[in-house]
Amino acid sequence: MTFPDSNVTNFISKRARARAIDPAFNSVGFGKAHDKGVAPINLGYGMPDQSFFPIKSLQVNLQDSSFEVPRETANRQEIDLKTGLQYASPYGHPSLLKYTREIIERIHSPANDRWDTVITAGGANGIDKCFDLLLDEGDTVLIEEYTFVPILGSVKNIGATVVPLKFDFQSQSGLDIEYLAYVLENWESLYPGKRFPKVLYTIPNGQNPTGFVTDLKSKQKIYDICVQNDIFIIEDDPYGYLELATDKPFDDVEEYLKSLPTSYLSVDKHSRVLRIESFSKVFAPGSRLGFIVAHKDFIEPITNYSVLATGFPSGPSQILINNTITALGGLDGWFKWAIKVRNEYWSRKQAAMKQLLQSSCAKKDQLIVFEPKAGMFISVSLNFPPGSNCLELMSKLSEKTAQHGVTVVPYQTLSPIPDFTKDNCHYVRLTIASAIDHGQLKEAFRRFTSAVEDLFQDLESS
Amino acid sequence: MTFPDSNVTNFISKRARARAIDPAFNSVGFGKAHDKGVAPINLGYGMPDQSFFPIKSLQVNLQDSSFEVPRETANRQEIDLKTGLQYASPYGHPSLLKYTREIIERIHSPANDRWDTVITAGGANGIDKCFDLLLDEGDTVLIEEYTFVPILGSVKNIGATVVPLKFDFQSQSGLDIEYLAYVLENWESLYPGKRFPKVLYTIPNGQNPTGFVTDLKSKQKIYDICVQNDIFIIEDDPYGYLELATDKPFDDVEEYLKSLPTSYLSVDKHSRVLRIESFSKVFAPGSRLGFIVAHKDFIEPITNYSVLATGFPSGPSQILINNTITALGGLDGWFKWAIKVRNEYWSRKQAAMKQLLQSSCAKKDQLIVFEPKAGMFISVSLNFPPGSNCLELMSKLSEKTAQHGVTVVPYQTLSPIPDFTKDNCHYVRLTIASAIDHGQLKEAFRRFTSAVEDLFQDLESS
Repeated sequence: MTFPDSNVTNFISKRARARAIDPAFNSVGFGKAHDKGVAPINLGYGMPDQSFFPIKSLQVNLQDSSFEVPRETANRQEIDLKTGLQYASPYGHPSLLKYTREIIERIHSPANDRWDTVITAGGANGIDKCFDLLLDEGDTVLIEEYTFVPILGSVKNIGATVVPLKFDFQSQSGLDIEYLAYVLENWESLYPGKRFPKVLYTIPNGQNPTGFVTDLKSKQKIYDICVQNDIFIIEDDPYGYLELATDKPFDDVEEYLKSLPTSYLSVDKHSRVLRIESFSKVFAPGSRLGFIVAHKDFIEPITNYSVLATGFPSGPSQILINNTITALGGLDGWFKWAIKVRNEYWSRKQAAMKQLLQSSCAKKDQLIVFEPKAGMFISVSLNFPPGSNCLELMSKLSEKTAQHGVTVVPYQTLSPIPDFTKDNCHYVRLTIASAIDHGQLKEAFRRFTSAVEDLFQDLESS
Repeated sequence: MTFPDSNVTNFISKRARARAIDPAFNSVGFGKAHDKGVAPINLGYGMPDQSFFPIKSLQVNLQDSSFEVPRETANRQEIDLKTGLQYASPYGHPSLLKYTREIIERIHSPANDRWDTVITAGGANGIDKCFDLLLDEGDTVLIEEYTFVPILGSVKNIGATVVPLKFDFQSQSGLDIEYLAYVLENWESLYPGKRFPKVLYTIPNGQNPTGFVTDLKSKQKIYDICVQNDIFIIEDDPYGYLELATDKPFDDVEEYLKSLPTSYLSVDKHSRVLRIESFSKVFAPGSRLGFIVAHKDFIEPITNYSVLATGFPSGPSQILINNTITALGGLDGWFKWAIKVRNEYWSRKQAAMKQLLQSSCAKKDQLIVFEPKAGMFISVSLNFPPGSNCLELMSKLSEKTAQHGVTVVPYQTLSPIPDFTKDNCHYVRLTIASAIDHGQLKEAFRRFTSAVEDLFQDLESS
């Protein structure tokens, strides 16, 4: 431990630190003592009375039940329209915050008690906020060699840069820990003049694109290395709920929760972890809602950024998600819904794996399938002949998949530093999320394997 | 005209210009030619099928009617759940974009045809995006001496600074145009070493806090000065729909639209205007939705910022607003609703004005009321005895209002440069938006005038 656990504020970026909200405005006549016991009437803050809202009530029809969102309710675990359509806290609505804290407590039992949560306007917004919190111009972020590349926008925007780490593709276990240690030990010679990394950005569970899950033992090792080097871990985990490693459908909530991939929070004795969750996969991407788990002293600086950039997260989105959780009977009902989603992903994964493994290109060893342990992506490694030009063959594969009527993602488009991966780019990402049913899913994977066979036939005959 | 109208891209900030989205990722296997006429199945983009969304349908009960949001619809002016809960365009949903373009066309008839609109995550988000688009570190923004100070967060975040302009408090007509010209003509001597302004940020209609409306003739003058000086105008107009100058309730849509305060767009021959609208006042603040009107070449750079910061605006918010407009019968029905909101604000304004003007402190000339021409704020100028310490007396007034049970906003808390306004800070902002009914509104204004009388009594007896 190179700095006291309790003091993380030294690591806040200069930009975020300079961003204290003007206390004069924040007061705006509020918070002043009111004598005489007269309840004050507000002529201060320009908050329209609820009679100005056109919507009287909402009825939400879920797949198996329905609920009403009334103008007003006394139930503190519901957000009524009076509250949900009004100006609101940049931290998020209290009831939803309560749920997010309980989710983290129950699934991940964080290794310290200095954490809190804050609602975000979705996963991408959570990532941008974490980078903003920690990174200054010239800072360096360690990043997986293949990853969710849109995050580069946030890093570049700050004027920071990324340095890629390697996966252990052999064991399919996630980050190559030896390579991580090697990079840090040899930083000066590998990256002369570049600032030593301040942050590791990782998608540890059902990684995009690999589908790898870093197990707890490996997380502990990576964590220890990061702590020794004063590196914060930004854990982006939108896919964890889509656990795929257990070989059956779930029914029991406790059993499901125990099966879920772990979080770095579980080993975070020293408050070096920021966890980003999203409601996109279990609820719906259009909701643009998620949350960050971080040291409690990070929450206000994160929120000060919200205030200037977005105000606060969408009320209708918070209403729909919070009240759906409540209508389902609280978190147990919510997890039951998550199980339903997970079971469908698992069953799609089974069907797609079968289709892939029974294909003649698998039998001819033209491809190796990475069976995902979580998430929505199956990856395939193509066994191109030794000495072939990887980029060129991947480009040919793209033509073939187009001809066969299937869209896929070549790994190289997910490479933050294309030059780093160009000789190891013989991978394709295939999502099981998007097909409208199992029939279409199987047909899509059939088309993909036909495209691969077609390509290898061309290679053999040329 | 000092630069060609058609080329505004030179004025995009360095940060925004560097932010092109990685074309490799954007392609992700899409957009490739598909031979054989086979409709491609998506194994590329990780977009969950709609069967993963827990909500089957929504019923929205408006004040006088109701409508359903189904899973799927063929009506292109409705956003169904399949679309609205899915990943979506950072530009906003096409149907809502269409409405925003029609709103602008119909009300403001822009003076050029190079404009377009883009949906934002609310007014604050729109402001942040416009500043991000135009400002680099060290740039200068002209700003009203009293304004919506949270915007300073965005300016500071970029490393830009603000310089205050003056109001013409005598004529209550908005910005003091002579002072604007004076500042620009004497820039070097008034602000030695400071970069010449690139942007004027103004709330021209129902200004916060003054309630002033800058009329079209004045807008033309201000616009001409800005064009001569290569200054862009960011017009923040959340309050325009709450027109208060016409002395009656409206019923007819055309009459209402003609009465609305004008936009700088109407004189914008040279594409120097960015207009920010919000759905907060006419729909609901919790929706966090609005739009920007700007030169079409500005739209993509604005959107590139969305992609990294928020992804795209909340689907549920877009569903509720877009489908409410459609359910009300399109824009005519929407404007009818706006009239209803406006009429209630107008009637509150009438009631509050009466309460103020009949008070004995008004009769004793202890205060002068600024009757607002639009918006949700009435301002009051206090006639403190000559030579009194303005800040000290305003602080005493705060104590008095607290004692009398009413919260108000002293102008000084809305001053971007408190030192600039400290000797001219004898104003209070009072909102008519927040009271639950006319009874409470009158009681609040009664308490306020009692507090003022109380203060002046103290002054006289001391």
